[in-house]
Amino acid sequence: MERVLERLERLFALGGGTGANRPGLSRAEQEAHDLVAAWMAEDGLAVSVDPVGNLVGRLPGTRPELPEVWTGSHLDSVPDGGRYDGALGVVGGLEAVGRAAAAGALERTLAVIAFRDEEGSRFGRGLFGSRALCGRLATDDLEQCDAAGVSVREALAALGLPPPDPAGCLERAPAAFVECHVEQGVVLAARGAPLGVATAIVGVARGWAEFSGLARHAGTTPMDARDDALVAAAEFVLRLRDAARAVEGAVATGGRIEVEPGAVNVVPGRARVSVDVRAPDRGRLDAVLTAVPEAHVHVTDPVPLAPGPTGALRQAIADAGLPVEELASGAGHDAMVLAAAGVPTGLLFVRSLADGASHCPEEETSAEDVALAVEVLAGALGRLAGV
Amino acid sequence: MERVLERLERLFALGGGTGANRPGLSRAEQEAHDLVAAWMAEDGLAVSVDPVGNLVGRLPGTRPELPEVWTGSHLDSVPDGGRYDGALGVVGGLEAVGRAAAAGALERTLAVIAFRDEEGSRFGRGLFGSRALCGRLATDDLEQCDAAGVSVREALAALGLPPPDPAGCLERAPAAFVECHVEQGVVLAARGAPLGVATAIVGVARGWAEFSGLARHAGTTPMDARDDALVAAAEFVLRLRDAARAVEGAVATGGRIEVEPGAVNVVPGRARVSVDVRAPDRGRLDAVLTAVPEAHVHVTDPVPLAPGPTGALRQAIADAGLPVEELASGAGHDAMVLAAAGVPTGLLFVRSLADGASHCPEEETSAEDVALAVEVLAGALGRLAGV
Repeated sequence: MERVLERLERLFALGGGTGANRPGLSRAEQEAHDLVAAWMAEDGLAVSVDPVGNLVGRLPGTRPELPEVWTGSHLDSVPDGGRYDGALGVVGGLEAVGRAAAAGALERTLAVIAFRDEEGSRFGRGLFGSRALCGRLATDDLEQCDAAGVSVREALAALGLPPPDPAGCLERAPAAFVECHVEQGVVLAARGAPLGVATAIVGVARGWAEFSGLARHAGTTPMDARDDALVAAAEFVLRLRDAARAVEGAVATGGRIEVEPGAVNVVPGRARVSVDVRAPDRGRLDAVLTAVPEAHVHVTDPVPLAPGPTGALRQAIADAGLPVEELASGAGHDAMVLAAAGVPTGLLFVRSLADGASHCPEEETSAEDVALAVEVLAGALGRLAGV
Repeated sequence: MERVLERLERLFALGGGTGANRPGLSRAEQEAHDLVAAWMAEDGLAVSVDPVGNLVGRLPGTRPELPEVWTGSHLDSVPDGGRYDGALGVVGGLEAVGRAAAAGALERTLAVIAFRDEEGSRFGRGLFGSRALCGRLATDDLEQCDAAGVSVREALAALGLPPPDPAGCLERAPAAFVECHVEQGVVLAARGAPLGVATAIVGVARGWAEFSGLARHAGTTPMDARDDALVAAAEFVLRLRDAARAVEGAVATGGRIEVEPGAVNVVPGRARVSVDVRAPDRGRLDAVLTAVPEAHVHVTDPVPLAPGPTGALRQAIADAGLPVEELASGAGHDAMVLAAAGVPTGLLFVRSLADGASHCPEEETSAEDVALAVEVLAGALGRLAGV
């Protein structure tokens, strides 16, 4: 397991700064891809780069004509990110593929994939590599620009990559995709479990709730003559919280709030609160939204994960003598894109420490849990690839 | 009464723009002072300017050795302010002084005063003329600057005025000061009364309440694992509202709110809400503050108004056949400064229309109510000046 941790450390150091600094489609992300390509070759995999820049390493099975079994994640990071987010799924995936093949000749070809620009912190949207692979880019994705005014199209060109084919470049869908990722939350730690199997990627409703009142003099307007927009917003924040609490597995967040005129001595005349509601299925999402009709939201539907890979993960966890914990993924991952595109997909979570801190240098997962994740992932890949 | 309304209209038009535009210590305020000085002379008053630039017009009584009786207000305005705020107290005061004297020979000299820079919208503090008169300037008041970087000291010099004497320039305290001002609120309109007598200038507690929680991922943090600073702030906003509602005559406002990190997908880790609590006496102010111990505030004590001038106003209102309505002044006025300096002071409020709108061109008071205010003010001044 030393090798996995050493490789994570080398990737972490690549971009400089106090944390991981490998923005999507940047030189630092490219260096990470080059480094991992070298490790893939070192480990005996056949290395290739797909038309949109995703890195793929293959270990051929005994029946290469069968659809392959994939694992992987991403190598880009947010600014000053953590050691494990994305990188663990690639480096640990590479380790697991090697271990699965070493355990016996497998029928299906195993592949490790490193997707491009999952985070979206540079160009705003993210999940670029997986969406480009699956033909799920929006028409204006290539024109999104970073803070320096560089567009996705230009960043691709600087890496020697042509604009992606809108239809995608997935020549043959894999039989299964299993992503391994740190939880970035506190659920597994609270349950005392090192690993968990995601049952679904939550649906997300995002938007704003707006309130209008009467902006009036804070000194001359009696309490019973007020229509205070911040009071209405405050009641909404608490009702939103209560609504999510009442629905198992749902969460809701008011992360931003704005009031006008925003003066100490004026009763607020307008207020708006951002709304982010998530739930593992549409029914539960709607149950929360029903309680907050003021919220105007755009809904991204939940994505269920597939019985095949999810069952293989569950079995491998049990084989390792660990409790089989299930949880919904509260965040999107490349797994979400592949699942939505019809690839039978599973998602293995590894316990986060440090109160679930992620997207920061403090992100932490223990060496023991990393070892268990590799063991379980290898077991699941072996099952899926067939002895 | 035509003359009062015409004069208000001329002052309103002075500075250009869509509302009153006569910033404190500006050329437009000076033009207003010059115009009113001309009207004072036209009406037979002896015109003078005090050492800090306040305009005074006197109508000598039969016993000029007695302390005088004053009325007045200010001639400056906020940007795009209303027709009545301040100006009514000067123009209506001038009319009332003339009418009181015409009703019979008075013992005491009557004076109308126009204070400088009451609003403070230019230099930030306001009540300049009355504070300078009473020796209540802060040591750094002259160094306050406007948006263009011009200091109070420079603005005074541009008007030909020397820096004020820190001890003030009140040679002989008047026997009484009675200010007439539009209510800038909705209380009199709600009671169906054209006029009201202020019982006190409210005390004001102003500051912030701060809340810290844990900034966490909005998708991966279950509701029961959250410490959401905005939820705490929302509960505070409602508790502040309830605390003020429970105390007769008190008001409380959260006019500003800020959260960090302020991202749609992050549970707020910090929040702060501005706090503005007002009440007619210290006991009631403290009663509200006790219910919101998180609020860290600076308290300006309430200022009671004096029985003499207040009684004279009450009597004059009754003489006019009007209901005698009492209310606290929720805002500071020049009357507050004179009362705090020991001058027996009264404050007459005139009903505001347009939902109490003020500090905007929509500010409205009816011609009938202006006429009643002048009649009542004349009556009160006559009583105070002695037949």
